[in-house]
Amino acid sequence: MARPKPLSGFPEFLPTARIVEQRVLASLAETFELHGFGSIETRAVEPLSELTRKGEIDKEVFVVRRIHAEADATDELGLHFDLTVPFARYVLENSGHLNFPFRRYQIQKVWRGERPQDGRYREFTQADIDIVGSETLAAHHDAELPLVTLEALERLHVDFGVPEATMSVSNRQLAEGFYRGLGIEDHLAVLQRVDKLDKIGPDKVAELLTEEVGLSPAAAATCLALAGIRTADTSFVDKVNALGVEHPLLTTGLELLAGVVEAATAVVPGRLVADLKIARGLDYYTGTVYETTMAGYESMGSISSGGRYDSLASDGKTSYPGVGLSIGVSRILVPLLGKGVLTASRSVPTCVLVAVDSEDTRTSAVAVATQLRSRGIACEVAPKADKFGKQIRYADRRGIPFVWFGTGEVKDIRSGEQIPADPATWLPPEADRKPMVVRSSLAQ
Amino acid sequence: MARPKPLSGFPEFLPTARIVEQRVLASLAETFELHGFGSIETRAVEPLSELTRKGEIDKEVFVVRRIHAEADATDELGLHFDLTVPFARYVLENSGHLNFPFRRYQIQKVWRGERPQDGRYREFTQADIDIVGSETLAAHHDAELPLVTLEALERLHVDFGVPEATMSVSNRQLAEGFYRGLGIEDHLAVLQRVDKLDKIGPDKVAELLTEEVGLSPAAAATCLALAGIRTADTSFVDKVNALGVEHPLLTTGLELLAGVVEAATAVVPGRLVADLKIARGLDYYTGTVYETTMAGYESMGSISSGGRYDSLASDGKTSYPGVGLSIGVSRILVPLLGKGVLTASRSVPTCVLVAVDSEDTRTSAVAVATQLRSRGIACEVAPKADKFGKQIRYADRRGIPFVWFGTGEVKDIRSGEQIPADPATWLPPEADRKPMVVRSSLAQ
Repeated sequence: MARPKPLSGFPEFLPTARIVEQRVLASLAETFELHGFGSIETRAVEPLSELTRKGEIDKEVFVVRRIHAEADATDELGLHFDLTVPFARYVLENSGHLNFPFRRYQIQKVWRGERPQDGRYREFTQADIDIVGSETLAAHHDAELPLVTLEALERLHVDFGVPEATMSVSNRQLAEGFYRGLGIEDHLAVLQRVDKLDKIGPDKVAELLTEEVGLSPAAAATCLALAGIRTADTSFVDKVNALGVEHPLLTTGLELLAGVVEAATAVVPGRLVADLKIARGLDYYTGTVYETTMAGYESMGSISSGGRYDSLASDGKTSYPGVGLSIGVSRILVPLLGKGVLTASRSVPTCVLVAVDSEDTRTSAVAVATQLRSRGIACEVAPKADKFGKQIRYADRRGIPFVWFGTGEVKDIRSGEQIPADPATWLPPEADRKPMVVRSSLAQ
Repeated sequence: MARPKPLSGFPEFLPTARIVEQRVLASLAETFELHGFGSIETRAVEPLSELTRKGEIDKEVFVVRRIHAEADATDELGLHFDLTVPFARYVLENSGHLNFPFRRYQIQKVWRGERPQDGRYREFTQADIDIVGSETLAAHHDAELPLVTLEALERLHVDFGVPEATMSVSNRQLAEGFYRGLGIEDHLAVLQRVDKLDKIGPDKVAELLTEEVGLSPAAAATCLALAGIRTADTSFVDKVNALGVEHPLLTTGLELLAGVVEAATAVVPGRLVADLKIARGLDYYTGTVYETTMAGYESMGSISSGGRYDSLASDGKTSYPGVGLSIGVSRILVPLLGKGVLTASRSVPTCVLVAVDSEDTRTSAVAVATQLRSRGIACEVAPKADKFGKQIRYADRRGIPFVWFGTGEVKDIRSGEQIPADPATWLPPEADRKPMVVRSSLAQ
C-alpha cells in the first residue's frame, strides 16, 4: 500500500493536536453539565426521508446503504448533517421517558456532502445545547442559552487562549412585526434578502427589496435602517422606536430581545450585542436568533449559531418548542491547530518514562511504573534496554518531562536536575501531570 | 410526524444510561492514558477499495456517497467496520510525524451492515489500544497489551459492577509449529476448522479435519487434544510437550505464550488463561491472539479481542508490526443497561435545583446558581415559579438530591432535612456531587 493521501474535507489531527481537542471538548462538556445539561448521543444515520424534508439541505446529504442491499431497497438512510434533526426525532421517539423541560447537550460528528473550503468540512464536530419543553417553554430560556454558550466559549478563551467570541442576537418576531408595521405581507421574503447584507452590501439588498419583493424605495430604506442597528446594550430599543414603525409583534420582539441583552450585560459584558440584521437562513426559527464570530476569524463565518423554534418537533398531539445553540468545534479548532496557534505541551499523556537497565530487570521497571500509576501518574516503561542517552531521547522526542532510573532517581530532562525519589511518594509538579494546552506566541 | 420507531441494530441510550456509558468511556480512557496511550480519532469513512480488501468483511460494509454524486463516481467511500483498518491507514499517512513505537487508543463508533442480533449491532462503540513499531516491535508488548486491557476491565468491575472478565490467550506460531510438527502443510486450513470448536463441537471438527483437510484420524485427534488445553498458569507447556510433537516454531510460540501468562499471573491472577483453541478468524494475526468473555454473558461472544500482527501496514519501504486489543463497549453495555443491571443515581448532572419564589426574583436565584457553579456544583434554576411542592417534584423526578430556597436554605429532598446554607461555602457530600453508577441488586 503506497502512502495514502488525506481526504479533502475530512480533517484528522495528529496526537498533539488531538490532546488540545480533547481538552476543549471536556471543557465544553463540563460547562454544559454545570448548567444541568445531560449528554445524549444519537446514531449517525437517520431515514433519508427525514433528512431531505428541510428545504435546500438535501443536496448535501451523504446516503448510506449496505454494499449488498437490493437496488430498490426502500429503507434508505443518510448520515445526519446536524444534531437538531436527530435530536427532534429522539425527543419524539422517547417523549414518554423524558422529563420536560428537557436539557441536553450533544457532542458528535456530522457530515455534509458540500464542497470543502475554509471553515467548511465534510465531516466535523458540533457541540449542541438545547432546552425543549412540552407544549410551552418560558422566554427566560432564550436568555439562558446564549449565556451558557458564551460562558463555555469564554472558558476556552481564558483557559486555552482560543480567541474571544462575540455573539450577535436578534429576534424574528421583532423583524416580522417591523415589516408588518410597514405594511409588508411577505415578511420572510424581506428577511431572506436582508440576510444577504454582509455578503452583497446594502445597495444590492435595496435593489433586491424593490425589484424582487416590490417594496417602495422608502420602505426598503427603512428595512435597511433596522438592519443597521447594532448595540451592546438595550439602546437598540430607542433606535428602533425612532424609525416610527408600530406593530404588536414588534413590541413583543423588542421586549424579548431587551431581556436577553440585559441578562447578558449583567454576566458577560461586551460579549453579546443586539444586531438586527441577524436572520439565520433556516426557516424553522420563530423567535430569538444567535450568531457568533471569533476575533480575528470573522471571515470564516459563525462559530456558534442557533435560535428559538416554536415547534422543533410534534407528534400531532403534543408539540415541543425549544431553544438551542450549536458550537462549531471543528470550525474553531481546525484553523487554530493548523496554524499552530494552539498546541499541547507534549504529544503523549505520559508524565514519566521508566528507564530499563537491562531486559533482565524489566520486571522491576514495570513495578515502579505500576506504583506511580496507582497514584494517577501516567507512565511508560522504555520499550528497549538501550543506552540511557537513547532512552532519554525517547522521552525528549515525545515531550515526556521525567525519566525514572532503576536506582531510585528521577530526572527532569528539561532542567537536567536528577534527584533521589521513591515511587511510593514522589509527585510531579501539578503543571506536568497532564499535557497542557499552550497558546503559541509566535503563530497567528 | 408520527412517533418514530427505533432502527434495529442502532442502539441509543436514554439520559440515565448515557451517564453510565460516559463514566465507562472516561474510565477506559483514563486507564489507557495512565499507560501512556494517546488518543486519536480517524474520520468515519475510508476508501471502499481499502475496506473491501480483507476477505469476507466486504458483505458487511456500508457504502457512503453524496446524494447527488454522479452514478459512475469512482471515489466511493464506506463507513469503517473496525478501528484497525483506519489506524493502519493513519499510521502510513502520518508515519513521518509519529514516534515509534507508537501507542494509541481510539474510542469511536464503527458500522457493520450485518443482521442485528444479540451482541451484534449495525452501529457500535469500540475502544482500541495498539502499539505499533517501525520495522520491529519487542515481544514484551504482547504481554503488556492484555494487562492494560484487563486492568481497564477490572476497573469497570470494581468501580461500576460490570461483570468480571476472563481473557483467553493463545499463539498462532504455537499452533502453526504444532501442525507443521505433525507434518501438516496447510496449517491455516486446520486453524480455521479448530476455530469452530465452540460452535460445532469436537466431533464435527474432527470430521472437517479428516474429510476437508485430509488429516488422518490420529492427527485430527492430536490437533483436538492441543485445542483442549486450557490452563491458568504455565502448566500448558508441559501438557503440550506431553503430546510429543516437535517444531522450532512450536518452541518459540510456547515461550512467548508462557511469557504472557507469567506476566499476567503476577499482576491479575486468575483473569488470563492460556487456551489453545483460540484462533481468531481474521488472517492478519501472526502471533499472540486474545479473546475475552464476561462472566454470565459467555454466550454473547468475546467482549475484547485482538492479537499480534507482523505487518499491520506497509508502504513498501517500511513495515509496521503491531499488537492490539479492542474492547466492545456496546457489547458490554447494551445488555447491562437494557436489563437494568447498571444504572445511574440520577438522570441529570444537576446536583442542586435552585427554586424560584416568583418570576421577579429569578435574577437572585440565578445569582445563587452562578455562585454554586463557580465552585463546581452543577445547578439548574427552576424553570417556573411554581408552588414549592411542584418545584421539589421537578427535582425528585430527575433524581436531583438538593433544592435551594431563596431564604438561604438547602433541603436534601431524600431525607427532608433542611438547613441554612451560604452559596459561597456550602458543599454537597462528595457522593452527591456527580451522578454515580449504581449496580442494581434486583436485576440479572
